[in-house]
Amino acid sequence: MSIDPERDLEIQRDISLSAEALWRGWTDPDTLMKWFCPRPWKVVECDIDLKPGGLFRTVMQSPEGQNQPEGVGTYLVVEPCRRLVWTNALTPDFRLKPPLPADDSLGFFFVVDLSFEPLPGGGTRYRAVCTHQTAAAREAHEKMGFHQGWGVALDQLVELMSLPA
Amino acid sequence: MSIDPERDLEIQRDISLSAEALWRGWTDPDTLMKWFCPRPWKVVECDIDLKPGGLFRTVMQSPEGQNQPEGVGTYLVVEPCRRLVWTNALTPDFRLKPPLPADDSLGFFFVVDLSFEPLPGGGTRYRAVCTHQTAAAREAHEKMGFHQGWGVALDQLVELMSLPA
Repeated sequence: MSIDPERDLEIQRDISLSAEALWRGWTDPDTLMKWFCPRPWKVVECDIDLKPGGLFRTVMQSPEGQNQPEGVGTYLVVEPCRRLVWTNALTPDFRLKPPLPADDSLGFFFVVDLSFEPLPGGGTRYRAVCTHQTAAAREAHEKMGFHQGWGVALDQLVELMSLPA
Repeated sequence: MSIDPERDLEIQRDISLSAEALWRGWTDPDTLMKWFCPRPWKVVECDIDLKPGGLFRTVMQSPEGQNQPEGVGTYLVVEPCRRLVWTNALTPDFRLKPPLPADDSLGFFFVVDLSFEPLPGGGTRYRAVCTHQTAAAREAHEKMGFHQGWGVALDQLVELMSLPA
């Protein structure tokens, strides 16, 4: 998909893992919990109902042991090992969440479009595009540390899936 | 899907048409334009790219000949002749629209979940569930005449598809 620089954030990297391994990282709850947020934060709960309109739910825990409010969203596209699209703007069965309060500076809706493209020489081109409702939401997400956070998490995924089985 | 009486509106009817005929009514632009809004209003433009993330666009015209702002949305589920889900909260490629102004009393986002269930004795159980972000949006949509409007449009669809070919 093409990028709207005003409203989108993007991370792309060529990775020496198969698309299957990256897919498992994103879609198997036990695997996802091991990499999805930068340490020392961790994911302590994860539910995945892998189908369009199915639940994607995580609970993160701070280094002090404090559970955060659950993150709930739903899948829009599930193409095994190729493309996964999900959003936090809808809940399962494609129900729209209520609008966010205008003064909620940390809250914003987004859609994440993940693609896993096998490379001719082996490995996978991994791309995550995160689209927002407004330029302000994109900026807030960037300032929260989107690039670093997603980059570190991706490092953790690559490390995890590179371990001897 | 189950109904949330606070936020959903629903119309259901058993119709003596095939699921294929109803599907064509919803997914073929030339056909849709002939029934989609209650006369003497009419649809003067329609674009359909029938896939998840594809464009659904209509332009309605008032009895006085005034074109209204285009209605743009995207499809979420496309299961031929069985289920069609679309929303006006996202544009193609699953891009979220900006939040609506709080004082926009006629504007609201919704998701429409259409199902076409073949009946044992012939005909089809047609069901349209329209879900909203809030109870207030549901109420505004109901007061705009949801039940009458969708009912009359459905009458027009049945009449159209019952004509001799």
